[in-house]
Amino acid sequence: MLDEETKRRLIQTGRAFMKGRRDDDPYEAEFVSDQEQRLPQPPLVKAAMRGQDARTALPMDFEHLEKKDDLVALIRERHSSRVFTGEALTLLQLSFLLWATQGVKDIRGRAYATLRTVPCGGARHEFETYLLIRSVEGLAAGAYHYLPMEHALEFLGPVEQIEEKISSSLCGQRWAAKASVVFYWSMVSYRAEWRYGIYAHRVALIDAGHVGQNLYLACTGLGLGTCGIGAFSHELCSSLFDLDGEEEYMVYTAPVGTVSEKDAPKEKAFYKFVEDQGL
Amino acid sequence: MLDEETKRRLIQTGRAFMKGRRDDDPYEAEFVSDQEQRLPQPPLVKAAMRGQDARTALPMDFEHLEKKDDLVALIRERHSSRVFTGEALTLLQLSFLLWATQGVKDIRGRAYATLRTVPCGGARHEFETYLLIRSVEGLAAGAYHYLPMEHALEFLGPVEQIEEKISSSLCGQRWAAKASVVFYWSMVSYRAEWRYGIYAHRVALIDAGHVGQNLYLACTGLGLGTCGIGAFSHELCSSLFDLDGEEEYMVYTAPVGTVSEKDAPKEKAFYKFVEDQGL
Repeated sequence: MLDEETKRRLIQTGRAFMKGRRDDDPYEAEFVSDQEQRLPQPPLVKAAMRGQDARTALPMDFEHLEKKDDLVALIRERHSSRVFTGEALTLLQLSFLLWATQGVKDIRGRAYATLRTVPCGGARHEFETYLLIRSVEGLAAGAYHYLPMEHALEFLGPVEQIEEKISSSLCGQRWAAKASVVFYWSMVSYRAEWRYGIYAHRVALIDAGHVGQNLYLACTGLGLGTCGIGAFSHELCSSLFDLDGEEEYMVYTAPVGTVSEKDAPKEKAFYKFVEDQGL
Repeated sequence: MLDEETKRRLIQTGRAFMKGRRDDDPYEAEFVSDQEQRLPQPPLVKAAMRGQDARTALPMDFEHLEKKDDLVALIRERHSSRVFTGEALTLLQLSFLLWATQGVKDIRGRAYATLRTVPCGGARHEFETYLLIRSVEGLAAGAYHYLPMEHALEFLGPVEQIEEKISSSLCGQRWAAKASVVFYWSMVSYRAEWRYGIYAHRVALIDAGHVGQNLYLACTGLGLGTCGIGAFSHELCSSLFDLDGEEEYMVYTAPVGTVSEKDAPKEKAFYKFVEDQGL
C-alpha cells in the first residue's frame, strides 16, 4: 500500500493544481504568453489525417431528428447509462452528437478563433474528436477523426477486435464494448498553451467537461445513453489514433449506445456494492 | 520574463496532470482508496453554515418559467455574455439555475451518494455552491450558500462594496460587477479523495465543467447571460465564503446577469484586439 507520506504529497500536488491563481504565485509576474510575444498562432483545428476519399460529409437536417426538447426534462432525465442494446445509430444522430459537442458556429477575426457549441477558455478549442465506431448506419466500423470546419468525418481505418480495443482503452470497462460509438477527446496542447502557457491546463480540463455535458444532454434528447469516462489508458488511446501522447494526448472519453428501459435492473446491478456493503 | 527552462518544466507538469492513467504509473499498483479501506465516508453535502432563520426555501414550479424549449436552438444560441443590463433575477429563475447545476434528484443507498442534475465521477458530487447576490427579487444582497438537499439558500451575510469584491475576486474583471448573481463553486476535496485518493483531482475539474455547461444552457433557456471564469483569486474567493482554502477551495466561477440584444456592439468590443492586431 502507498505510504502515507507519498499519498499526502500526491494529494497536495493534485489540490495545488486545482486551485485558482494564488497571490504568492512566483511565476505570474514574469509570465508572458506566446500570444503576447506575437509568436505565430497554431492552426485552429488539426489538419485532415487522410485524403478526400476517406471523408464522409455529415447531415445537418436536425429538424428531422426524433428528440425531446423540454429543457427541464432534459436536465432532470440526464443520467449515466452503462447497459447498451447494441443497435446502430443513424448518421444524423451521430452528426448531431458531434455538432453538439464540438460543432463550429463561426470564426472570430480572419482566423483567430472558432466559436463552437461549447464554451472554451479564450475560445482556443484545443480539442480534437476521435471515434471508435462499432455500429452507425452508413459507416464502416473502425476509427474516425472529426473535421469540425467541414462538419465531416474521416475514416482512419478498420480496427481489429474493436470491442476488445474499446474495453482495454477504457481500463477494462467491458460494458463499453457494446457502445455503438465511443467518443475520445484529445487535447492539442499548444493550441491552448499559445495563449495561456503555464496556466493552460487547469482550465482545459474544465472545458473538456463542457463538451461532455453537451454530449450527455444531446444523448438525453435523442433517447440514447452515455457515460463519461475519465479513467482511460493514455498509451492505448494514443496508439489507437496515432497521437504522439506529448503534443496531443487524450483527456476524456464517452461511450454512446442505444438503451432500453427493460435494462433498468442491469443498470442497477452496477451499484449492487452499495447494498452489499450497507452504504 | 520566465526563463525557458522553468516554462518548459511547468508546462510538462500541467500536461502530465491532464493525461490519463499511464502504464508506467508507479503508484497505481500500491494505491488503495480510503473507501476500499472502509474508512468512514465524508458527508454528502456541507452542513448548513447558519441557522434555520437564515434560510430561504427555493420555488420549484419551473413550469411557470418563461423559457426556450428547443434543444438544437439552446445548443446553437449558447454563448458567453459579459455585458449585463443589471436588472434583478426572479427567485424562480435563480432557483432553476441552482437546480440545473447542482440539484439533487435522488439518494443512492442509505447515504452513499447524491444523484444530481449533472454527472460526477463516482457520484461524489464534491462541489459546494456559493453566491454573491447583487440583485435577485426577494433576497437581500450579499453572500449565500446553497443547500442542495433542501433546495434552499442560506444567507451568510451582507458584503460591503460587493461590486468591488466581485471584480477583485475574479482577478479584476470589472464587467462581472454588473452581474445580478455570481456563482462560485468550491471543491470539498476529501469528498472525492475518499474514493479516488491521488486520482481525484483531474476528474473533478472535468466534473466542474459539467456543472458550468448546465449553467450556460439553463441561462440560454431563460434568456440570461453568463460567462464561465477560470481565472479567480484563490485567497479572495476563500475569504469571501470563509473557506479554509485547503480542505475546501474554489474551482470555478460564473457571473450571471440580464442581457439585451442592444448591447451586441459592447460585447463585440471585448474582441476589438482581434481586429486591431489583424488576427
